[in-house]
Amino acid sequence: MSDVKFLLDEKDMPRQWYNLAADLPSPLQPPLGPDGQPVRPEMLTPVFPTNLIEQEVSRERWITIPDEILQLLYLWRPSPLYRARRLEKALGTPAHIYYKNEAVSPAGSHKPNTAIPQAWYNKQFGIKRICTETGAGQWGSALALACALIGGLECKVFMVKISFEQKPFRRLMMETWGASCVASPSNQTKAGRDVLAEHPDSPGSLGIAISEAVEATVTDPTGQTRYSLGSVLNHVLMHQTIIGQEAKKQLAKAGEKQPDVIIGCVGGGSNFAGLAFPFLADKIAGAKMEVLAVEPTSCPTLTRGPFAYDHGDIAGMTPLLAMHTLGHTFVPPPIHAGGLRYHGMAPLVSQTVVEGLVKAVAYPQLKCYESAVLFARTEGIIPAPETSHAIACVIDQANQATQEGKQKVILFNFSGHGLMDLTGYDNYFRGKLADHHLEEDELAKSLKAISHLPKPKAQKTGKW
Amino acid sequence: MSDVKFLLDEKDMPRQWYNLAADLPSPLQPPLGPDGQPVRPEMLTPVFPTNLIEQEVSRERWITIPDEILQLLYLWRPSPLYRARRLEKALGTPAHIYYKNEAVSPAGSHKPNTAIPQAWYNKQFGIKRICTETGAGQWGSALALACALIGGLECKVFMVKISFEQKPFRRLMMETWGASCVASPSNQTKAGRDVLAEHPDSPGSLGIAISEAVEATVTDPTGQTRYSLGSVLNHVLMHQTIIGQEAKKQLAKAGEKQPDVIIGCVGGGSNFAGLAFPFLADKIAGAKMEVLAVEPTSCPTLTRGPFAYDHGDIAGMTPLLAMHTLGHTFVPPPIHAGGLRYHGMAPLVSQTVVEGLVKAVAYPQLKCYESAVLFARTEGIIPAPETSHAIACVIDQANQATQEGKQKVILFNFSGHGLMDLTGYDNYFRGKLADHHLEEDELAKSLKAISHLPKPKAQKTGKW
Repeated sequence: MSDVKFLLDEKDMPRQWYNLAADLPSPLQPPLGPDGQPVRPEMLTPVFPTNLIEQEVSRERWITIPDEILQLLYLWRPSPLYRARRLEKALGTPAHIYYKNEAVSPAGSHKPNTAIPQAWYNKQFGIKRICTETGAGQWGSALALACALIGGLECKVFMVKISFEQKPFRRLMMETWGASCVASPSNQTKAGRDVLAEHPDSPGSLGIAISEAVEATVTDPTGQTRYSLGSVLNHVLMHQTIIGQEAKKQLAKAGEKQPDVIIGCVGGGSNFAGLAFPFLADKIAGAKMEVLAVEPTSCPTLTRGPFAYDHGDIAGMTPLLAMHTLGHTFVPPPIHAGGLRYHGMAPLVSQTVVEGLVKAVAYPQLKCYESAVLFARTEGIIPAPETSHAIACVIDQANQATQEGKQKVILFNFSGHGLMDLTGYDNYFRGKLADHHLEEDELAKSLKAISHLPKPKAQKTGKW
Repeated sequence: MSDVKFLLDEKDMPRQWYNLAADLPSPLQPPLGPDGQPVRPEMLTPVFPTNLIEQEVSRERWITIPDEILQLLYLWRPSPLYRARRLEKALGTPAHIYYKNEAVSPAGSHKPNTAIPQAWYNKQFGIKRICTETGAGQWGSALALACALIGGLECKVFMVKISFEQKPFRRLMMETWGASCVASPSNQTKAGRDVLAEHPDSPGSLGIAISEAVEATVTDPTGQTRYSLGSVLNHVLMHQTIIGQEAKKQLAKAGEKQPDVIIGCVGGGSNFAGLAFPFLADKIAGAKMEVLAVEPTSCPTLTRGPFAYDHGDIAGMTPLLAMHTLGHTFVPPPIHAGGLRYHGMAPLVSQTVVEGLVKAVAYPQLKCYESAVLFARTEGIIPAPETSHAIACVIDQANQATQEGKQKVILFNFSGHGLMDLTGYDNYFRGKLADHHLEEDELAKSLKAISHLPKPKAQKTGKW
């Protein structure tokens, strides 16, 4: 029998999503509307179907997964947990390194875990067409897949232009699954046209693409279009919590009590939350573990952005969210980890950082590629550039365990494979990539643009 | 529980490879050397390690898989068997369609099933460097992966130029795993230079690339290089038979007695053989089933090539193999299913066709892409262009079952995903692809070039 792969039976697959909002030591700050008052759920109905709005605002700890959704998740779930014994050996570390392999989905990442429920709830609500944005294309392709599997749902994707150009294959995945995909900023929306007027060569950003997708949704005269987001929001993160729930059972099968260190990369926060939140419930209840969120130095939302109220998009169409942010006008440099190029961070993840439950760290891309190549050559799976950030941190943690002589258990989320991202590897091998560090004055400038917005109270118990 | 995915426990994974040569009703014709006499095993030692030569000439029915190889295969095996219920529904067919998903390997195809054993046996034999060729890149990337996982083995790949240009990502996979990859015909070998002198714009072919890889092997002055082939040879096909052995157990779990129709695409024959050979053992013993090998109309080796003695490569460096062939000078048009562009066919597969155990059919590429898109939009997995040939045939068989009102059980090998082949889909969507049918005079010309070679006796019992 394998001593590196730990599978779970379908019968042991989680039947409920875990809602961290029920257990947060300090409450989430409410989203605010244009009037500065908390958003009421009914205000969101032009954008999201009611059934998903209910999940977004729910404070129930557990929410049952409908059987029709489970049947579709079974196509590739439960995902395997691997022990990275070859990587451990290459590092000469006493640490036990485990990774949850979310690359096994047909879209190659964790994103279908929420794409399928979102598409299903939209269809249940009578919606005919879903608009969304995508960075590196992992989310857009996942939603395209979900709409194809569920059927009867059109899918329209605004893809950040730099990724649209760097990653044509992700667009082709979307088209093969029947979705339509346009480069953002586009001239199909006012938000896009405004950006193009000022910056004709804009590489785009998630903030711009969100504006376009929301505008395309709310201006559809049929009223049968809704918007879908692949990260950031509470219900999206919740849909990912099957990852951590599965990992707990699989770690037990591997003979481990609990992880000492949990690591995930963060863009909007969903793959990190999916793995970490079920473990954070234990940490809140008293368990000792370190939980690390890894972001790029070029877009250091958690490590350098303040906890503030800010819009999720560049045009200010979304409600104000209380989150770590670099300012919604911030456009990160075109690094290859397109999925990590977001100015904000999920309010739930931000709150865990404010509270001290989660520690944020930032890594430059060259070190991430170096780590990814070592991982590919030892473990055999080529990581997505986003995932490589988690791996760089894992390697540092393992080396630290070596220095301390500790047999730490390190668990990380292998959020996606890099088969569609090999251009980045090519540029890395040819020495064409550079590290980016956000300049102080650039940060100050984009933060100034949000200085007039209401300020949230950074609530924390001081326990962690 | 899922009603579409049928998994197998690791403990039920096959522990032996199945050797069809032991059960063939009529014996295989021997390979012939330059003197027209049967090749003796020791003549192959400059090209292959002795342990693999032993497997190549073995007539033992079962060969035990070393535990170290099993441990590596466990990384993704047993592979899942799926019932294509959504495709069945889209077709409105009473047929039950099953597919063995070999796309779940880290390289995305069935090829690592033999790459890992081949790399392992080479290392056992003290070899330091493996040379090979690759068509679409599935084989080259699989061998690069295997050499990385096993460690201490250099890997050099001659990649058919048309695929090298159409599929840069497959080259990048190889490089990420540490292999070196050059476009063939190259100027690194005499065989390559000879082709370039006559046809500077040659798109390349597997026959040319094999010549280059063999030449690079036997001319290494250190004597520590050996050659590796991803298909065609007896031991390569045998390594793939874990697919069919697993499928038998999984079909039983799905409540099916046996398949009525078994389908695989054929280039050199390995994925087809891997699925079909364990079932052919039953057919030879009296079971009734139809077994279909699907090839492209542009390279119709089985349907239009005679059963003849021919070289496996363009330069005539390999022994003469008794097989269906279009002539070793035949260079197929640059269709997107690069893995099916081989002038010859595995001798074992050829013999099953001669015997009547297997029926060959040919499909044009447009119909294959149409079928692949339907599959992607119903089943959620994007097929490799090679695999799409099997799917086109599956759909025809299912539609025939509908017309006949029969609840046929159709089983096919989903040999690989198409995530690295999306350029082909792009060309298909944009109407840039055409069908190719081999012209009579072109076939006659390339067959004339082998008319002087010895003739094998097409042996058959006449039972099928």
